[in-house]
Amino acid sequence: MKIPHQEVIRILTEIFIKYGFSKGNADLCATLFAKASLEGVPSHGLDRVPVFLKMIRNKLVFPDKQAELMDAFGFFERWNGNLGPGMLNASICMERAINISKEFGIGVIALQNTNHWMRAGNYGWQAVESGCIGICFTNTKPNMPAWGGSEPKLGNNPLVIAIPRKSGHIVLDMAMSQFSYGKMNTFLRADKEMPYEAGFDQEGKLSKSPAEIIEHELALPIGLWKGAGLSLVLDMLATILSGGQATNEVGQSGEEYGLSQVFICLDPKRLGMDTWSEEKLDGIIEDLTSSSTFLGNKVRFPGEKIPEIRKENMEKGIPVDEQVWEKILGER
Amino acid sequence: MKIPHQEVIRILTEIFIKYGFSKGNADLCATLFAKASLEGVPSHGLDRVPVFLKMIRNKLVFPDKQAELMDAFGFFERWNGNLGPGMLNASICMERAINISKEFGIGVIALQNTNHWMRAGNYGWQAVESGCIGICFTNTKPNMPAWGGSEPKLGNNPLVIAIPRKSGHIVLDMAMSQFSYGKMNTFLRADKEMPYEAGFDQEGKLSKSPAEIIEHELALPIGLWKGAGLSLVLDMLATILSGGQATNEVGQSGEEYGLSQVFICLDPKRLGMDTWSEEKLDGIIEDLTSSSTFLGNKVRFPGEKIPEIRKENMEKGIPVDEQVWEKILGER
Repeated sequence: MKIPHQEVIRILTEIFIKYGFSKGNADLCATLFAKASLEGVPSHGLDRVPVFLKMIRNKLVFPDKQAELMDAFGFFERWNGNLGPGMLNASICMERAINISKEFGIGVIALQNTNHWMRAGNYGWQAVESGCIGICFTNTKPNMPAWGGSEPKLGNNPLVIAIPRKSGHIVLDMAMSQFSYGKMNTFLRADKEMPYEAGFDQEGKLSKSPAEIIEHELALPIGLWKGAGLSLVLDMLATILSGGQATNEVGQSGEEYGLSQVFICLDPKRLGMDTWSEEKLDGIIEDLTSSSTFLGNKVRFPGEKIPEIRKENMEKGIPVDEQVWEKILGER
Repeated sequence: MKIPHQEVIRILTEIFIKYGFSKGNADLCATLFAKASLEGVPSHGLDRVPVFLKMIRNKLVFPDKQAELMDAFGFFERWNGNLGPGMLNASICMERAINISKEFGIGVIALQNTNHWMRAGNYGWQAVESGCIGICFTNTKPNMPAWGGSEPKLGNNPLVIAIPRKSGHIVLDMAMSQFSYGKMNTFLRADKEMPYEAGFDQEGKLSKSPAEIIEHELALPIGLWKGAGLSLVLDMLATILSGGQATNEVGQSGEEYGLSQVFICLDPKRLGMDTWSEEKLDGIIEDLTSSSTFLGNKVRFPGEKIPEIRKENMEKGIPVDEQVWEKILGER
C-alpha cells in the first residue's frame, strides 16, 4: 500500500508526541523515518517504527532526552547523546558539524551515549543538501566475526561518505557486512540462498545459506579480513573520539543502545575547492558511467537513484508494508 | 639472502644521490624503502627499487623536486607534489599533518601532482609513532572494474587508518582490491588458484584464476559493489580536496604518475582523549583477541605482527630476493 508523505509524517508525529516527544522533536523524527521509506530504504524507515517504540517502552531510548555539548575544541566537539532517540541526536550532530564547517572549513562531532540512528544515509544527504562533504560512522552491537573467529565480536559499523554535486550528489551508505541481517531474513523467508557469499557456516567455510549465518551471527565482513579490519578501526575511532562505549561494551547488555558515532563535515567553498570541484566530479562520473559492462547495463554511482525514487514516492505515496502500517496505526 | 638494515640504507642512499637526490632526500627515501622490507612488505620495499629508478630515468618521477605548499587554511593545507618522489612527498605531508594536529588538534593535507608512495603503511606508522591518529589515502591508475563493469575504471586506492596505543599501535593498511596484482602474480607463477575469489572472468563471473584477472585488470573490489563504491568516493575526495588528477585522468597517460593523496592527523592529547584512549583501546583489543576461532588460533589486530618482524629483521638482516639485490647493486 502507499501512504502520502505528509500523512505518514502527521501520523508518526502524533504517535511520537503520545510517547513523550516534544512537538518539534516528534516532527523531526517522523520526518527522518518517513525520509528513509520515501527514498527506498523501508528497512530503516517505517519497518523500524514498531521496534523503535518498543525500545522507548523498555526505557532503552528516552524520548525526552537529546544530545548536548560536553567539550568544545573549535572545529571539534564532543557531545553526549543522553540515550535520546538516535536519529534525533544524529541529525542534531550533523547539523552542528555542517555549521562548524561553514565557519572553520571542517567540523567534527563525536557523539557518545546515543542510540541507533536508523538510516545512515539520511545524515549524508543532510550534509550534501547543505553543500558540505559529509562523513559519518557509528558502531553497533557485535554482529560479525573477527577474521578466523567463530563468534560475533565486531559491529557492522555503517559508514557514510557523501559528496555534494550540482548534477547529482554522491552518497555512499554502507555497513561493513556484505549483507544486512534484514536482507538475509528476506532471503530466508523466501527459502532462497544469498546471491553471493554472505557469512560463515559452523565449519568456518564461506556460506550463502542465510539460516545458519543468522543463527550464529556470522555475517561476512566485506573483503573478508579487510572489512573486519575496517570495522575494528571505525569502532576504535568512534569510541576514543567520543569517549563512549565500544562495540564490545555495547554487547554486554544484550541490547543495542548507548552507541558511539562520529560526524565530519568539510565545506568545499571554505576550503577553496569550489572552482574545480564540480568539473572534477562530473569528469569522474562521466568516465565511470561510460564503462563497458558485462550485461550491457549502465554503471551507477552511489546515491544516483535516490532522487528519482524520492520523486516517485512523493507523487504516488510512500510504499508501506500493510502489516507494518497496521501496527503503526495501532499505536495512535 | 639477508642484508643488514644499515647497509641497505647506505647502498640505496648512494644510488639515489647518483640519480640526483639531495643527500637528505636520498637518505629519507632509502630509509622508507628499507622500512617496508624491514617490516615484512618487500613488494612495496626493495622489490620496487628497480621500477622506481626506471620511472626516474623515464622522467615520470623527478628526484630533485619535492612537495611545496600551495594554499593554507589553518588546519587544512593544499600541497603540490611537483612530481617528486612519492614516498618523499608523502612523508613530508604526513609530517606536516602531524605538526598541524599538535597545534590545532587536527591537521589535513591534500597533495596533488605526486607519485606512488610505495608502502602506504609507512605513513600510518609515522603518525602513530608521533602519538597521532593517522588516516591517509591515495588514488591510483584505473585497475579495478566498476560494479558490473568489464574494464578497469576504478583505482584500488589504498587507505590507511592508524591508531596509537602504548601496548601496540593499530595500523590498518588496505587497498580496495581483495588481492594486489603483485599477490596474484605470485600465485600465477606458482601455477596456483587464489584462496578466495579475486576478480572477474571474461563472462563477468567471480574467479580465482589469476591469469585471466591480471590480463584484463578485473581485480575484485572488497565487498563487491561496496568496495567499488568506497574506491570511487576515496578518489573523489583525494581529487577535489587536492585539486589534482582523478583516477580516470591518471589513466589517460598509460603510466601511473601525477596522483592525488590526503593525509589526516588527530592529536588525542590535544582533543582531550588521552584520559580514556589507552583503556578503551586495550579493552577492544582484549575482547577481539579473546574470540573463539574455527582453527583454535588467536585473532590478530591490524599491525600486530609488525614490531616483531621489524625486531627480527633488525637483528638478522632484511630479507631480499637475490635477483632484486643484484639489480640494485648494479645501479651503483
